[in-house]
Amino acid sequence: MTDSHRGTARTEAIMRTTLELGQEIGYAKLSIEAIAARAGAGKHTIYRRWPSKGALLLDSLLSLHRSSLDFSDTGDIVSDLRTQMHAAIDLLGTPPFGPLYQALIGEAQSNPQVAAALNERFITPQAELTVARLKAAREQGQLSPDFDLDLAMAVLSGPLYFQLLITQEPLTHAYADRIVDALFIGMGKH
Amino acid sequence: MTDSHRGTARTEAIMRTTLELGQEIGYAKLSIEAIAARAGAGKHTIYRRWPSKGALLLDSLLSLHRSSLDFSDTGDIVSDLRTQMHAAIDLLGTPPFGPLYQALIGEAQSNPQVAAALNERFITPQAELTVARLKAAREQGQLSPDFDLDLAMAVLSGPLYFQLLITQEPLTHAYADRIVDALFIGMGKH
Repeated sequence: MTDSHRGTARTEAIMRTTLELGQEIGYAKLSIEAIAARAGAGKHTIYRRWPSKGALLLDSLLSLHRSSLDFSDTGDIVSDLRTQMHAAIDLLGTPPFGPLYQALIGEAQSNPQVAAALNERFITPQAELTVARLKAAREQGQLSPDFDLDLAMAVLSGPLYFQLLITQEPLTHAYADRIVDALFIGMGKH
Repeated sequence: MTDSHRGTARTEAIMRTTLELGQEIGYAKLSIEAIAARAGAGKHTIYRRWPSKGALLLDSLLSLHRSSLDFSDTGDIVSDLRTQMHAAIDLLGTPPFGPLYQALIGEAQSNPQVAAALNERFITPQAELTVARLKAAREQGQLSPDFDLDLAMAVLSGPLYFQLLITQEPLTHAYADRIVDALFIGMGKH
């Protein structure tokens, strides 16, 4: 095993431990010390790579997520949006991702570095995929030519985050379907 | 001055101090002890009324908000929605309400009592006003008869909260207008 392989294996063990321990005791009680102890790593090894508990949790969550929120392109934009929203809801609604992601967003309200990293590494790439898929649909005439594409991420994801963070009711596929339907129909009379 | 008047004056002084001190030092550093000291009140007086810092902040924020988010009814639903969204943005974008409300939502991610109180005392009444105004518009034929009214709060507010909590970019009236326009046009071709 090379040094670089050992480093990768250790990094993965630390991230796995972060998710396991986070799920067991919750984000508030999670500490770098406890993660280091359970992962059999030095505290300083962790701090060398991650400046804070929030940064370590973000990386750990992203290691789970990988490409599960990629867009499929079956040619039917409504169906593809539903599929993508269902995947988002499965991710948000399932431990360890859901509760720990919710806690991370809570942390981002008082920690600008966590907020910036969350946007740079998760939200922005996701928004770019969303806009690309919708742009293709618009070119194929499946989307209103007037629709404000730059708002797509906010209008599609906003209602999910509203339910996750504000009303804190369970996220369901049916809820996602209603959002997609409402956005396609629109509020106005035609 | 009666005992009840004195109680009200003291309650108002404590809430005013919570907002002042919160604005000065931020929610994370705010403590019941410091609020009590500056308001000239006993710590136990505060704890008798508010179980936690989050509960006290929620009441203090609601005392600022009062009826500023009531819906006007000019007969034109698009114009009334814009007015209402602008008021929401003015509230969210202005200290002390904005940053402290954001911190409170952060707190609500790990404190279920704060989350429940936020919903019961602020979100649900707001949703009811929104649905009532939209229902009237639907009856007047200004809204698509198919539009899912129960989703109105989530689709209108969701993109505001997304910007406040996730992308953390400044909230502007122009952003609100784009949301209302996008929701009225819809994503679909007509």
